Amino acid sequence: MADYELHCFGESGHSYKAALMLQLAGCDWKPVFLDFFNGEVRSEEFRELNEMGEAPVLRHSARTGEVILSQSGVILDYLATATGKFAAGSAVERREVLRWILWDNHKMSSQAGVLRFMMNFVPEEKRSADVIGFLQGRVKGALTVLEAHLQDEDWLVGDKPTIADFSCCSYLYYPEPFGFDRAEWPNISDWLDRIAAIDGWKHPYDLMPRTA
Amino acid sequence: MADYELHCFGESGHSYKAALMLQLAGCDWKPVFLDFFNGEVRSEEFRELNEMGEAPVLRHSARTGEVILSQSGVILDYLATATGKFAAGSAVERREVLRWILWDNHKMSSQAGVLRFMMNFVPEEKRSADVIGFLQGRVKGALTVLEAHLQDEDWLVGDKPTIADFSCCSYLYYPEPFGFDRAEWPNISDWLDRIAAIDGWKHPYDLMPRTA
Repeated sequence: MADYELHCFGESGHSYKAALMLQLAGCDWKPVFLDFFNGEVRSEEFRELNEMGEAPVLRHSARTGEVILSQSGVILDYLATATGKFAAGSAVERREVLRWILWDNHKMSSQAGVLRFMMNFVPEEKRSADVIGFLQGRVKGALTVLEAHLQDEDWLVGDKPTIADFSCCSYLYYPEPFGFDRAEWPNISDWLDRIAAIDGWKHPYDLMPRTA
Repeated sequence: MADYELHCFGESGHSYKAALMLQLAGCDWKPVFLDFFNGEVRSEEFRELNEMGEAPVLRHSARTGEVILSQSGVILDYLATATGKFAAGSAVERREVLRWILWDNHKMSSQAGVLRFMMNFVPEEKRSADVIGFLQGRVKGALTVLEAHLQDEDWLVGDKPTIADFSCCSYLYYPEPFGFDRAEWPNISDWLDRIAAIDGWKHPYDLMPRTA
């Protein structure tokens, strides 16, 4: 049995944050497919694992017993501590890492994830142009903050990649259109290339099983 | 000069999280009014303080120099460590506190804050029924998770109030309508009463200056 099992699905950028960290930190892990699109997160069994009804969920067979974690930011923080990799270097940097992970959950991945879902995975007759326009405005605001921050920085915090980068980048590698065009955001595009150049990097659809 | 200055405005639930913690932890603090509705967060001066362009921002005159923090979750974590109050008791509880704060930023305050803004502070002709309906669905989903968690628990984590409670409760004390009716959520309502019974508690509009 692998040390880590990640309940996830390929289309989930939130899952990708955790999968990418497990992969790049060289953990012994395997993905466990979660059938989100057929409602598995609403099942009693999954609710037992995560009352928030969300992917991803990480199970760690630790020496002291099994640890079950949800919320990608908690999983990233746990793995950075457990592996010593992609962690912040000082107390000041730790606060900066947490700051970007919170911002990502509030302003970046949360909005981009729902927008991509609405534009690609919801039946066309159920899509609302108003809601899509609203979310596109939110995502554009977030990308503007990210683009400005990366003007003079290679990484979000300090001078090397951290879990903050893995959190904020997650939805930006997906091919489905949601109004994000790399050509319009050169600093973000270069940063995505830097992350993708880290030894072992894989695309979300090559790391996690997709819905058929 | 006070030890802590909080750049905030009364209408901001994100600011309230930090203000409430400063108040209940008995810190020497004062609010500094941020004129959000007239665009102060977009000013060069404010962007210097917080490139994310968001309230709140905390300035702490620490012995080792001034510390400037943004993102309410970072501020709460910093104050819990600095004061030793409303902090998690163990590593497991610390992860649970972070988990609820991340969930709040992703699913609760973020959605409720924008919804309340759309329904009360945006000119009527600019409101979209589709967007309001969409956000109400998101908020209802979050309230359902919170209501279920509080079925057998007095507090979100462990057996006493923590910064997780102060994060998740923030928008739920405001009087402006956004589709949240306490009568429909009895466990949440009782929990809000428990928080309001903590010595020193104040309503957001009594803790922070409001826009005229």
